[in-house]
Amino acid sequence: MNEVFELQYALDTFYFLVCGALVMWMAAGFSMLEAGLVRSKNTTEILTKNIALFAIACFMYLVCGYAIMYGMAGEDGLHAAVPFLAGITGDGVSDGDSYAPSADFFFQVVFVATAMSIVSGAVAERMKLWAFLAFAVVMTGFIYPMEGRWTWGGNPVFGLYELTMVDFAGSGIVHLAGAAAALAGVILLGARKGKYGKNGEVNAIPGANLPMATLGTFILWMGWFGFNGGSVLQTSTVDTANAVAVVFLNTNAAAAGGAISAMILARILFKKADLTMILNGALAGLVVITAGPDTPTPLQATIWGALGGILVVFSILALDKFKIDDPVGAISVHGTCGILGLLLVPVTNGDATFVGQIVGAVTIFVWVFVASLIVWGIIKAVMGVRVSEEEEYEGVDLAECGMEAYPEFNKAS
Amino acid sequence: MNEVFELQYALDTFYFLVCGALVMWMAAGFSMLEAGLVRSKNTTEILTKNIALFAIACFMYLVCGYAIMYGMAGEDGLHAAVPFLAGITGDGVSDGDSYAPSADFFFQVVFVATAMSIVSGAVAERMKLWAFLAFAVVMTGFIYPMEGRWTWGGNPVFGLYELTMVDFAGSGIVHLAGAAAALAGVILLGARKGKYGKNGEVNAIPGANLPMATLGTFILWMGWFGFNGGSVLQTSTVDTANAVAVVFLNTNAAAAGGAISAMILARILFKKADLTMILNGALAGLVVITAGPDTPTPLQATIWGALGGILVVFSILALDKFKIDDPVGAISVHGTCGILGLLLVPVTNGDATFVGQIVGAVTIFVWVFVASLIVWGIIKAVMGVRVSEEEEYEGVDLAECGMEAYPEFNKAS
Amino acid sequence: MNEVFELQYALDTFYFLVCGALVMWMAAGFSMLEAGLVRSKNTTEILTKNIALFAIACFMYLVCGYAIMYGMAGEDGLHAAVPFLAGITGDGVSDGDSYAPSADFFFQVVFVATAMSIVSGAVAERMKLWAFLAFAVVMTGFIYPMEGRWTWGGNPVFGLYELTMVDFAGSGIVHLAGAAAALAGVILLGARKGKYGKNGEVNAIPGANLPMATLGTFILWMGWFGFNGGSVLQTSTVDTANAVAVVFLNTNAAAAGGAISAMILARILFKKADLTMILNGALAGLVVITAGPDTPTPLQATIWGALGGILVVFSILALDKFKIDDPVGAISVHGTCGILGLLLVPVTNGDATFVGQIVGAVTIFVWVFVASLIVWGIIKAVMGVRVSEEEEYEGVDLAECGMEAYPEFNKAS
Repeated sequence: MNEVFELQYALDTFYFLVCGALVMWMAAGFSMLEAGLVRSKNTTEILTKNIALFAIACFMYLVCGYAIMYGMAGEDGLHAAVPFLAGITGDGVSDGDSYAPSADFFFQVVFVATAMSIVSGAVAERMKLWAFLAFAVVMTGFIYPMEGRWTWGGNPVFGLYELTMVDFAGSGIVHLAGAAAALAGVILLGARKGKYGKNGEVNAIPGANLPMATLGTFILWMGWFGFNGGSVLQTSTVDTANAVAVVFLNTNAAAAGGAISAMILARILFKKADLTMILNGALAGLVVITAGPDTPTPLQATIWGALGGILVVFSILALDKFKIDDPVGAISVHGTCGILGLLLVPVTNGDATFVGQIVGAVTIFVWVFVASLIVWGIIKAVMGVRVSEEEEYEGVDLAECGMEAYPEFNKAS
Repeated sequence: MNEVFELQYALDTFYFLVCGALVMWMAAGFSMLEAGLVRSKNTTEILTKNIALFAIACFMYLVCGYAIMYGMAGEDGLHAAVPFLAGITGDGVSDGDSYAPSADFFFQVVFVATAMSIVSGAVAERMKLWAFLAFAVVMTGFIYPMEGRWTWGGNPVFGLYELTMVDFAGSGIVHLAGAAAALAGVILLGARKGKYGKNGEVNAIPGANLPMATLGTFILWMGWFGFNGGSVLQTSTVDTANAVAVVFLNTNAAAAGGAISAMILARILFKKADLTMILNGALAGLVVITAGPDTPTPLQATIWGALGGILVVFSILALDKFKIDDPVGAISVHGTCGILGLLLVPVTNGDATFVGQIVGAVTIFVWVFVASLIVWGIIKAVMGVRVSEEEEYEGVDLAECGMEAYPEFNKAS
Repeated sequence: MNEVFELQYALDTFYFLVCGALVMWMAAGFSMLEAGLVRSKNTTEILTKNIALFAIACFMYLVCGYAIMYGMAGEDGLHAAVPFLAGITGDGVSDGDSYAPSADFFFQVVFVATAMSIVSGAVAERMKLWAFLAFAVVMTGFIYPMEGRWTWGGNPVFGLYELTMVDFAGSGIVHLAGAAAALAGVILLGARKGKYGKNGEVNAIPGANLPMATLGTFILWMGWFGFNGGSVLQTSTVDTANAVAVVFLNTNAAAAGGAISAMILARILFKKADLTMILNGALAGLVVITAGPDTPTPLQATIWGALGGILVVFSILALDKFKIDDPVGAISVHGTCGILGLLLVPVTNGDATFVGQIVGAVTIFVWVFVASLIVWGIIKAVMGVRVSEEEEYEGVDLAECGMEAYPEFNKAS
């Protein structure tokens, strides 16, 4: 075999693995973000959900998700196999691929977990642990892989029509999808006790540990370099290396833009530098740029991110008007801003059309929302989705996990 | 020099350095895991032990550990030098190596620290700080390098016999070794006051900060990609790139399997989703796969990890029966599951035999356990190993470090 | 185009991006370090400052900083463009560069943020948030880029004289610069209430969360591999790969040396293993080695780091004598030890002279200190720099951010 080809193959594989490890790291980011933004009495449980959903996602994607998403088309030796039975077959080279098949799987599997991580925050502080995990099984093994199949998998939607949406790293396919599943859950679940008063007032329920939440945001910011950067799918040529570098730079610029705009807007609206809004602004910028980090200039990327930072603040306020209780703002960050990201792609990328982006966004949202509503509904009927009022009052940690997150720190009355 | 060779050399070196940085990051993982699982009054001290042991490991391995482990055989220009005196000699190329000598040292030195990190958790909350650090000097400068010499160093045990054990990244050489040293320390030290009641009951002593412990586990999970992935030792060809990718994928799968099985088992045994058992389950899966992450299919790796997740729960319960008090479960995670990892290698790897694995495990355990017992014994005789009863009651933080970890948070009475 | 050249280009670009991501990660490190070392009532605000300054640095360097630092010389197609208007132009190859221009920008931009991160810790617990952010705009958009222009940018100081200082990765250009800006701020700001008693006593004000501070140190330690390792600027040949490996190894050795020497010195001075001094010792070692991590042997690097660990302890004590109140020790770590780092370069690097190092250090210090003093002065005149006495007593979190970092944990009276 050609030594230069071997080196290309090796570099692209290593690049995939490094980016995949960074995306895996995002699981820690979601955990810390959510653990910091809930009350201390619900912290152990949200940590449990986060590590368990990551493990379940890895398992379900191996068992069937990957095969659903990329397989059964009969065209691709790499993806057609069911990994569960055959392992990740193919040696890459004979399949005409330019990287190791296992590296591709590794990079894909951590994306599934990201989609599911979005859900846990939105349903925090009142959903039953095992109901959540049951949903995670279906989401990561079937709902996400189906829409992945229609998009990155290259198959028509239920055999009906080709999606022409351009979604570079998944503003829609990953983030909007996660938010749609979360929204379905939140609607079925209802708001936390005390969140919305009788006279329409919205009560702030502060998170217990803001350093943790900030750490989580920094982890996500870092991990996103792998999320977007790895989605170039190759780095061993001048053109692809330039593309990966542009993606890193724009991803960073968008996060910065989102943090700044959310900070300024919060200053105007609330007269304070609202840290949680700044964190959500940075994440909003990251979600927005994810659909197309390869074509904007860095200044455009900063502006795209800044639009996200503004939108997320208004989206959080709007959801509260509708009494959609999302403790960490996940639906606004990943859903509302995911749509914005898709819609901004045609501005700088001639391959995308607004119609195509809208059709894609609607298809993903409708599929994931409806499928999730059905699954959440079945789970509700079978085992219930909400903890008892007493458990919610006492905190789900003791009820579900039997241990407190901070057993020694007295709680303020 | 051949340009293609230069590129191979450069890529392999960079791969080593990235993997080494990930393993160094595991030091933060152990620190956070242990800091989260001890009581707040002993948190500053465990943090101090962790950062100090890492520094000591780096120093001692430079002074003598590396030379003991790889040198003195007269066969290898790279390793024969004593780094302390000569620096890391050789330019790699003229030594016939395919990566920078310094990168090799960097990757090796962070492994030593990992072995030592295992000890700190097990002896937490009652061992004297300076006694611990004295042990760290001998462990990282001599005890670990000796067994490393017999295995990865390729020299016969005390000149007696060749170990034929297959231990890819160190389930035995690193993890079991760390656990054996820990066990020796714990036996000499005795249990924490109040852990075991007069009537045989085992009292749970909850950790003070579970988000920290969860973060630590995620850090270790991420760092393990470097630990196992780097142990392929090369990535610049199609074959080695494929191998590294398989190792990343299997490492992740095993951690997922361990988390899931421990969660389910804990649910059955304790009726709760026990977060600390889930964390230990994930780590157990990682330890198990470490001996042979290159040969199983991803499904096998998941199962191997799941076996670890089950074993670690029973091991923790069993050690408590014997009143072996290990506050963080390190002996079970790294010792019991390290042995399981070694024993599972022959199932998928034809190069390994059960006899070879058992001989290797026994040799490592006996050497490290006996040598550690002697060293702990000498330290006990010279300076004592256990803090006074009053210091233990008040917390070792004030006695040893003169500062509290969380001075502002009132403690629950 | 030559395939081998493409691979070199690709590998060097990827190396830059990985190192840049690690340096970005240092922003999380500074955040956690500072959040752990301040009191809980000032934690939200320090987190806000840290994430906001990072975002501002990314924006300002894009708008004008990069152009000031590297542009306007008319010699370099890559850097001459104003990124704000034109994007990061050039395709790298036609510019004769061996990596993607965007990767270069990405690596540079995270350095700016590092310089600014140093400031936030020193002025913690009493500086107005918006005054700080206003300074961040000028520091990252003008003050830092100017001295960067004279050094890494290769232009004479105000057109006057060439600096011949050797500063590999920025002990002076980044760390001393950040410390000089911090010192100017601290002098204008004054000490925290209660820090210095009427009878000359220095009151310890313990940080609220030492696990966070320790985590921050580990993050910085890890991120420093990118900071120093990436500063080789190439890794695709045998020589550069060897250099990068040496830099990783020496960076690690110096941190270890600093932690150990600070621990021993603190033991002698205070009779305790002072964790915060150990953390600062490790950071001091890192700052010291940054000026020249490529030429010492690992043992020399350990000793250089150890000198830093000793110096930082005495520097912290000395600053307190002068009532320069630096809550996290940033001026000592980055300033005092930054100078030491510059002065040690000639010992192992024949290209450096003591005179050149001293001239460089003085030039950087004077420029940044004076420019900062002027800017801080203007900000003080326009909007004030210090919060009111009542806000300082109550904590800046509520006043500036409207939220507590740990709302549920009762504070010790």
